[in-house]
Amino acid sequence: MSSNFDSRQECLEIAMEVHQVVPPPHMSTFNKLKNRFKETFFPDDPLRQFKGKSTKTKWILGAQYIFPILQWGPNYDLKLLKSDIVSGLTIASLAIPQGISYAKLASLPPIVGLYSSFVPPLIYAVLGSSRDLAVGPVSIASLIMGSMLRQEVSPATDPLLFLQLAFSSTFFAGLFQASLGFLRLGFIIDFLSKATLIGFMAGAAIIVSLQQLKSLLGITNFTNQMGIVPVLSSVFHRTNEISWSWQTILMGFSFLAFLLLTRHIGIKKPKLFWVSAGAPLVSVILATLVVFASKAQHHGISVIGKLQEGLNPPSWNMLHFHGSHLGLVMKTGLITGIISLTEGIAVGRTFAALKNYQVDGNKEMIAIGVMNIVGSSTSCYVTTGAFSRSAVNHNAGCKTAASNIIMAVTLMVTLLFLMPLFQYTPNVILGAIIVTAVVGLIDIPAAYQTWKVDKFDFIVLLCAFLGVLFISVQGGLAIAVGISIFRVLLQITRPKTVMLGNIPGTDIYRNLHQYKDAVRIPGFLILSIEAPINFANTTYLKERITRWTEDYEGEVEKTKKQSGLRFLVIDLSAVSAIDTSGISFFKELRMVLEKKGIELVLVNPLGEVMEKLQRAEDGHELAKPDSLFLTVGEAVASLSSACKCQSSNYV
Amino acid sequence: MSSNFDSRQECLEIAMEVHQVVPPPHMSTFNKLKNRFKETFFPDDPLRQFKGKSTKTKWILGAQYIFPILQWGPNYDLKLLKSDIVSGLTIASLAIPQGISYAKLASLPPIVGLYSSFVPPLIYAVLGSSRDLAVGPVSIASLIMGSMLRQEVSPATDPLLFLQLAFSSTFFAGLFQASLGFLRLGFIIDFLSKATLIGFMAGAAIIVSLQQLKSLLGITNFTNQMGIVPVLSSVFHRTNEISWSWQTILMGFSFLAFLLLTRHIGIKKPKLFWVSAGAPLVSVILATLVVFASKAQHHGISVIGKLQEGLNPPSWNMLHFHGSHLGLVMKTGLITGIISLTEGIAVGRTFAALKNYQVDGNKEMIAIGVMNIVGSSTSCYVTTGAFSRSAVNHNAGCKTAASNIIMAVTLMVTLLFLMPLFQYTPNVILGAIIVTAVVGLIDIPAAYQTWKVDKFDFIVLLCAFLGVLFISVQGGLAIAVGISIFRVLLQITRPKTVMLGNIPGTDIYRNLHQYKDAVRIPGFLILSIEAPINFANTTYLKERITRWTEDYEGEVEKTKKQSGLRFLVIDLSAVSAIDTSGISFFKELRMVLEKKGIELVLVNPLGEVMEKLQRAEDGHELAKPDSLFLTVGEAVASLSSACKCQSSNYV
Repeated sequence: MSSNFDSRQECLEIAMEVHQVVPPPHMSTFNKLKNRFKETFFPDDPLRQFKGKSTKTKWILGAQYIFPILQWGPNYDLKLLKSDIVSGLTIASLAIPQGISYAKLASLPPIVGLYSSFVPPLIYAVLGSSRDLAVGPVSIASLIMGSMLRQEVSPATDPLLFLQLAFSSTFFAGLFQASLGFLRLGFIIDFLSKATLIGFMAGAAIIVSLQQLKSLLGITNFTNQMGIVPVLSSVFHRTNEISWSWQTILMGFSFLAFLLLTRHIGIKKPKLFWVSAGAPLVSVILATLVVFASKAQHHGISVIGKLQEGLNPPSWNMLHFHGSHLGLVMKTGLITGIISLTEGIAVGRTFAALKNYQVDGNKEMIAIGVMNIVGSSTSCYVTTGAFSRSAVNHNAGCKTAASNIIMAVTLMVTLLFLMPLFQYTPNVILGAIIVTAVVGLIDIPAAYQTWKVDKFDFIVLLCAFLGVLFISVQGGLAIAVGISIFRVLLQITRPKTVMLGNIPGTDIYRNLHQYKDAVRIPGFLILSIEAPINFANTTYLKERITRWTEDYEGEVEKTKKQSGLRFLVIDLSAVSAIDTSGISFFKELRMVLEKKGIELVLVNPLGEVMEKLQRAEDGHELAKPDSLFLTVGEAVASLSSACKCQSSNYV
Repeated sequence: MSSNFDSRQECLEIAMEVHQVVPPPHMSTFNKLKNRFKETFFPDDPLRQFKGKSTKTKWILGAQYIFPILQWGPNYDLKLLKSDIVSGLTIASLAIPQGISYAKLASLPPIVGLYSSFVPPLIYAVLGSSRDLAVGPVSIASLIMGSMLRQEVSPATDPLLFLQLAFSSTFFAGLFQASLGFLRLGFIIDFLSKATLIGFMAGAAIIVSLQQLKSLLGITNFTNQMGIVPVLSSVFHRTNEISWSWQTILMGFSFLAFLLLTRHIGIKKPKLFWVSAGAPLVSVILATLVVFASKAQHHGISVIGKLQEGLNPPSWNMLHFHGSHLGLVMKTGLITGIISLTEGIAVGRTFAALKNYQVDGNKEMIAIGVMNIVGSSTSCYVTTGAFSRSAVNHNAGCKTAASNIIMAVTLMVTLLFLMPLFQYTPNVILGAIIVTAVVGLIDIPAAYQTWKVDKFDFIVLLCAFLGVLFISVQGGLAIAVGISIFRVLLQITRPKTVMLGNIPGTDIYRNLHQYKDAVRIPGFLILSIEAPINFANTTYLKERITRWTEDYEGEVEKTKKQSGLRFLVIDLSAVSAIDTSGISFFKELRMVLEKKGIELVLVNPLGEVMEKLQRAEDGHELAKPDSLFLTVGEAVASLSSACKCQSSNYV
């Protein structure tokens, strides 16, 4: 083939104007690394707004960047305050019962839930960039923290140590969250795909609801394990020994029905959001009154009991940074940190998109992280932006993060003066509140939509769901993330190669399987590789392309109509990257094809690929002008005209 | 925009012929899964040759498929035999000294190395499809097995248990290898990229060479650890206590010089391959004679000592399938299995490419696996195709796997009759043989080539190299594989988005950065996404595309020359796959852009992407004809003509 190079080149020039493939402009290795680094860690270019500003403005912008309150604070007025007071009071009425309930879910003293709804919202109001986030403890993180810590320490026999571990985990969760934001590694939470979260949430909601059977049925000895099997056996096994308390059951299910009804109203008519927002507090007050009036605490209904008045006591002396439980505490911090971060960021982004403003993911991570670090030394456990309360906040018309301050002030008043009122609050009502809150986490329409669009995503969803139910909360999560990543790796290990054909009357070449009117060009096999070429797939590609060429030759032999294979054209438009294995792959492929008298032609290598092809030893062989074209159309046109030209030369 | 839909559609039809984007033909979910499964696990379509054959032919083909010896056996003749005898004897002369040496490297009795060169080659000759592979123990796998097992059991104090663990590890290695082949999961070894292997081999070679200082310097108390630090400190620390043996040093370095010289000759003149191939055996004989004649074993030179005559004793009763060391044994089996498999497959593929025949990766894995399983119950430790011996085999003119049979027969004769001859063989000569063998694993030109083509690959190489030297053999390997996979994931998390421009005089659109003569179209922002869109990158893409549009609008404001942004055209030619998160991404992007008065236009979605876009809820919004085009050129042409048309309508 190469002996005819000159005459062919000449012909090419006569035949048509061919566009050159060029490498991207030269850049030093350092600059390339710098660019890559910037794109990886600073895709949003956070320093853009500082460019070309005076020093003073830079300082002000810098302060506003770190403390978003300085951005909206100066323009704050009475009208905004009015809206924020309404929404702040609304979420406070939700935060009090939910705080107590979620603390119980994490096996912590109920008052810790109230403490956690006081300090963190204040920190977030200063540092956070979302206007809608309602900060406080959330169900999933509470569930995970409780279940992980219970593996090593029993909250019943050693409540102080358990509390210490909870605060320490919160510290590590915060440290981890803030570091992710600071190191701009926020993309790590992206590995929790939507499908994973839908399955995980649904599984966790079922586990949490089942756990609440303990308070709803008034069972005293209940399993601490989280699997569906031990919980169910705990429910039905106990029936033989201790009778359930009918007073508890009656009260529990009446209030559960009431709460679910108000929740339904709130969903159907968003304007009546206050019905569902106020219902938990109303239920708590009603239930407390009933117990107080009927002295039901002596008739088998367990109550919260005395809660201490006063604001958050300091807890930094309770943090554990060494000792035998350090590993557990760090692991718990990591997992609750990542889960609560995912919820907080997702909630922030959702409402920002609705109101058309931006939240900066990395900044949010720092805000949530700092809030948990401070929280861990002021008797708070892990907190984040809660989905349900943020929705209520949004519906109640919140305008700025000041609604969190209003909520915190309300909590402060509660902590200082209203604690005795909770003495007779029955535990059963907390169970009902938790069940109502987590029912919303089961999103069947989203699961159905996932099934419709992408079967594999649905498998991931199902694995997360079943994993949480039958293995453990963290186990289910790990399996789902593992499968998601495996799928991505599989896509790379087995990249698609498709055969292209010409759409008649154009010089467009498209997938022959997808476009039925596309036609093949005799003598040409035109393939498109649809993935980066790297160590993980070169072996596969070699085998697959060999099979394509053999299939082609087999067909030629069978039909005896077509001419033999002359050119293997590979369209690299979809190959975004290549590594040294990929370069060797092309060299070997070229060698193998040459032995069969087939010429390898490459089309449209993108910048990086083109550069590496040229830089490789013997790379000029691959990147020489008569085997490199800008479009498939030009390649086919000039190669076939060159062929004709050659034959006419021989005549 | 949509209110003008009808008039625009009309205009489009007048303006030009636009080609439709069509989804691929309908296929049931089951068929799709079947296809995907086939492409993933049977890319080579192994049953192809059976199609349309008679039952008898099918049986014959099937037997030949399982036992490749039936393929070449019937046509075997004297001429082939002559070549195979020459090459078989040559590799046998290499296998005897190397077998003894590598067994010592693994802290096993020297005779195990000879046993391992007898049974496995016979099995491979029946099952293997490579014609050039010379089977036996290899340095890297021996090194790893020895160093891993020594972590828990000392071969000096408990030699029997150590031997049992070695056989058990070999069993698990074989089981793992055969399973990989049988389950067609061979692509797992592809994750050991070339760069990883270059770095790993070089590091291991240095470690092994340093370890040989023990025999070369005649040091008696030597560290069992594999890191470079303990080995070096072991060498220099000992100098103060025990003097080195000068006789050993003299003998060791003379023979080392001789072996390295012959190796050099063998490389420079491939025709003189027999010089380097025969040198180890010659050295062993010479050294043995010297020791025997001078009674040097009484002067500080340690010798191998008495070896038992006779063939491999059975060892199935020595396999451990339970007990405290099971975890270690399985881990060792897994790692040595994967490493030796990688070497064997790579060697087979290399020589098959040279001689232009095919080896089937999965079949090779089964052959190597079965050979190790059988080996483990006949006193052999882990074996595979050795690179150096296969090269000698190839150079010596081997024609079929029968050369392995010749080698095995030679070994049999040795085991039965020649064992007393090794009684006076000095250990120092084994060290010299090992050093000569592993020096070839340090491939500096390949490392330089990697640096030139791909800096990141070089970092991977360096990590493997330094990891092996300073952490541990398995540690270095794990780090390098981890980094390789992380890199692939990073490519997906941060996909490239590039801005396209029109190459004047054509309807080709290419990267503006790469093609300096490409020009932008006013009112259009044309982006190309160069990766599958999935959960791991939708957040990034959203941020990055928002920044592209803001940059565009900023420029418009500054120059006031261009018209505002009307269309965001996204070329999906390089998006090979999409998941549910990706679909949501497009929906959200469309919503956000609509608020800014910008229309989202998609170009050339590939089969799977097109299908999922259509199947999604509201997907018809994304896939409606006036926002979906087959090429960027058509999109720009028809949208700008539609614009003009609209304005003229208003006039």
